[in-house]
Amino acid sequence: MFISFEGIDGSGKSTQARLLATTLTEQGYDVVLTREPGGSAGAEEIRSLVLEGDPDRWSAETELLLFTAARRDHLEKTIRPALAAGKIVICDRFADSTRVYQGCTRGDLLERVNALHSTMIGVEPDVTVLVDIDPSVGLSRAKSRQTAEERFEDFGVEMQIKMRSAFLALAEGVSRFVVIDGAQDLDAVASDIVESVMPRLLARPQAAS
Amino acid sequence: MFISFEGIDGSGKSTQARLLATTLTEQGYDVVLTREPGGSAGAEEIRSLVLEGDPDRWSAETELLLFTAARRDHLEKTIRPALAAGKIVICDRFADSTRVYQGCTRGDLLERVNALHSTMIGVEPDVTVLVDIDPSVGLSRAKSRQTAEERFEDFGVEMQIKMRSAFLALAEGVSRFVVIDGAQDLDAVASDIVESVMPRLLARPQAAS
Repeated sequence: MFISFEGIDGSGKSTQARLLATTLTEQGYDVVLTREPGGSAGAEEIRSLVLEGDPDRWSAETELLLFTAARRDHLEKTIRPALAAGKIVICDRFADSTRVYQGCTRGDLLERVNALHSTMIGVEPDVTVLVDIDPSVGLSRAKSRQTAEERFEDFGVEMQIKMRSAFLALAEGVSRFVVIDGAQDLDAVASDIVESVMPRLLARPQAAS
Repeated sequence: MFISFEGIDGSGKSTQARLLATTLTEQGYDVVLTREPGGSAGAEEIRSLVLEGDPDRWSAETELLLFTAARRDHLEKTIRPALAAGKIVICDRFADSTRVYQGCTRGDLLERVNALHSTMIGVEPDVTVLVDIDPSVGLSRAKSRQTAEERFEDFGVEMQIKMRSAFLALAEGVSRFVVIDGAQDLDAVASDIVESVMPRLLARPQAAS
């Protein structure tokens, strides 16, 4: 089972991905916790190539191709082998992050984002946990963590508001999405996620064997 | 005017690209000579990422995405600015090399090669000079140059025969292609190329101004 976590910065999705990995491991499941961009040796190298140096040295189009190359490597080297070995893969961000980010910054690229995805990736998670939060709450949380805060302020609150709406729009009516109220305390969010994910996990044919 | 040079290893296309650049420069044209993979600072970095280290560390799909990212960067940073400034761009290898290489090694990827090209590159040269040569002649020539020889032997003669046919098939009936007999001596090949390219160059509206 392939589970992705999505949400704006400060939503707590990375913490919740770790907590779900711990819970499932304690229940005896074999879990691989990974993240994007990165998640395999090659993808981490591509991530460095994109994120190091002058932030304007790559155009949005080239960056999209590089991140798609990283995703392809991550899929081949980490995600697929783990799924083939019967493991649960929990991934902090996947293709929905690209869709939302590009949709909110370079909306004209969205068609190309989707074309690239269907041509070169072609996989969606079985379950996507969208940790939804009001950006102002997310911001005050993110302020306690330097790196997240920097990213948050790079984007600005208005951008986070747009991205929150875009995530909710993406989830609307799509069965793989589980939308969780991220404004609750950490334990309540974690418990909501387990309650949403477990029935889907138990309903899978593999779980019976 | 955007001119690409294509052909199998040992065809002499790189030498001929240089000779045409010199001839056109002597005639007063402003010429940019470039090559793929690479041709811009970012594309050269991507080239290094792909070609260094274990040759099997990237799958054909990931490599295709990385080379498309390099081509996009090359197009944006080198080719388009030069064309916009009224220069002639001569490029040693472009998208046809990818089509032929993938068509001959991973034919199942060809549809994806074309989809990626039309989604993310979308440009063809105005003229493509295909320097055609019998692979056995190309091989004996390449033997005098260590690097070309290595590449040639990596592929093998059978592969070069397949690639020659694929280049000719690609050129068949497509007006941007000029097929030149590369088995002649260097000066005769160069003169054939100038004779084929000049009328196209002079026929362009910009040439009149």
